[in-house]
Amino acid sequence: MCHQCVIEGVKKTMLSRRALFTGAAATGVAGVAAGLAPARPALAQTGGRVVDLTHTYDSDFPTFDGEPGILTEEAVNFEESGYQLLKLTLFEHTGTHIDAPLHFSADGASVDELEPQNLVCPLCIIDITAKAADDANATVEAEDVEAWVSENGAFPAGALVAMRSGWAAKVGDPSFRNDEAGGLAFPGFATSATDLLAEQGVLAIGVDTLSLDPGNSADFAVHYSWLPGGRYGIEGLNNLEELPATGATIFVGAPKHRGGTGGPARVLAVI
Amino acid sequence: MCHQCVIEGVKKTMLSRRALFTGAAATGVAGVAAGLAPARPALAQTGGRVVDLTHTYDSDFPTFDGEPGILTEEAVNFEESGYQLLKLTLFEHTGTHIDAPLHFSADGASVDELEPQNLVCPLCIIDITAKAADDANATVEAEDVEAWVSENGAFPAGALVAMRSGWAAKVGDPSFRNDEAGGLAFPGFATSATDLLAEQGVLAIGVDTLSLDPGNSADFAVHYSWLPGGRYGIEGLNNLEELPATGATIFVGAPKHRGGTGGPARVLAVI
Repeated sequence: MCHQCVIEGVKKTMLSRRALFTGAAATGVAGVAAGLAPARPALAQTGGRVVDLTHTYDSDFPTFDGEPGILTEEAVNFEESGYQLLKLTLFEHTGTHIDAPLHFSADGASVDELEPQNLVCPLCIIDITAKAADDANATVEAEDVEAWVSENGAFPAGALVAMRSGWAAKVGDPSFRNDEAGGLAFPGFATSATDLLAEQGVLAIGVDTLSLDPGNSADFAVHYSWLPGGRYGIEGLNNLEELPATGATIFVGAPKHRGGTGGPARVLAVI
Repeated sequence: MCHQCVIEGVKKTMLSRRALFTGAAATGVAGVAAGLAPARPALAQTGGRVVDLTHTYDSDFPTFDGEPGILTEEAVNFEESGYQLLKLTLFEHTGTHIDAPLHFSADGASVDELEPQNLVCPLCIIDITAKAADDANATVEAEDVEAWVSENGAFPAGALVAMRSGWAAKVGDPSFRNDEAGGLAFPGFATSATDLLAEQGVLAIGVDTLSLDPGNSADFAVHYSWLPGGRYGIEGLNNLEELPATGATIFVGAPKHRGGTGGPARVLAVI
């Protein structure tokens, strides 16, 4: 049975099961008609606790290429001027940041061209911490997606699906980026999973590591298949362990400099 | 009657009027007990339309000091490397951006130290477009705050109060920053208003101009009284005319570089 068939089967099962709930009131969710994947559930399910999915970053924050991602210098001094501000020199793909389609395509959407509506999404989290503990280059596979759907139901329309590998806790340690031999080593998505997510109408993916692809990827297959399709990705997520597998809403505070390929983003979740 | 007394009087009136609504269902707002200023209404009142309050910015975007706020250069070329990214050189207070307390104090909170919970706020908009059309340096005064409360009720707890002056539409024109004599000229807040807002528990203020203080301010009185108190401000808001005076939720995607005094922010509202 193909992946798509499994998902469709699950959808049907969930639909008949959920049809028992005939009104939004039964689930405490206002304004959402009963059913499987409401058009833009976004905020309706939220209650108000904010979880910051963003790392604080500075020139010591690990980067994919190993070079400092940001340098700061004082531009105005408080003692001299009565106020203060910094000049920042930064490479776009630093800290918790967004990859716009343009990052891996010649003419995809730049970060300022993303639809604002697509920066507020239902957040779904696929937990692979168990296999990542055994394999630093573990990936989210199609089977992990199917297992998630079996347990949680279909992805809400316009969802952002994040990989939780447990890597955020390593951010101050060399093992965030490298294995003991010094090679890049961290979990990511496999295309078997992202192809399935694209079929399911998922809008964006996120990881708690340095890259959408695993550290040992030779071909950036996920970057090349996901981003040019007009979808975006978030790298370097923090605090995913504070959230449920589904039910939170994610706000992607993507930068809006003209023509950008991405950049540091403030990412918040509300649950 | 002092400003505070007026506000308290209005609160009492509104409370007795609102007591008629004895359940959240009456207003279509889930999870919020009836009353005046619920603890953190934030998302409960939202329905799902996202309004982008952020300008796209580049080196031509107007700045307070008149110098380019951002310079971009290609760091990786797509034809050569199969992907691309930019190096950015920017001054923190550029584009639609946040002023952290540290911007106008020696040791206030830096932008990475702001409480995430305080970046998701009920948004209240005070419209002074009529008087700003007659006076480029018009300010939001205590009387404007009182008039807003008379019409809309008390500010929700933890609100962000934004001035709408109509200035966002001028952003490509010299009149966004200057009068015909070349002096700085744009609307802002007066301390008579911000003192009252602080008393009311308002958490942050925002403007659709280059500064929290009006262009002709000689002393930055609002910056010096508002920010060191631990509150923050947003400058350069866009699209406020698409939102009601109250009822939207604002998400302030503040940057999170360590020790920052502020910086470009992605600001979204959901209504």
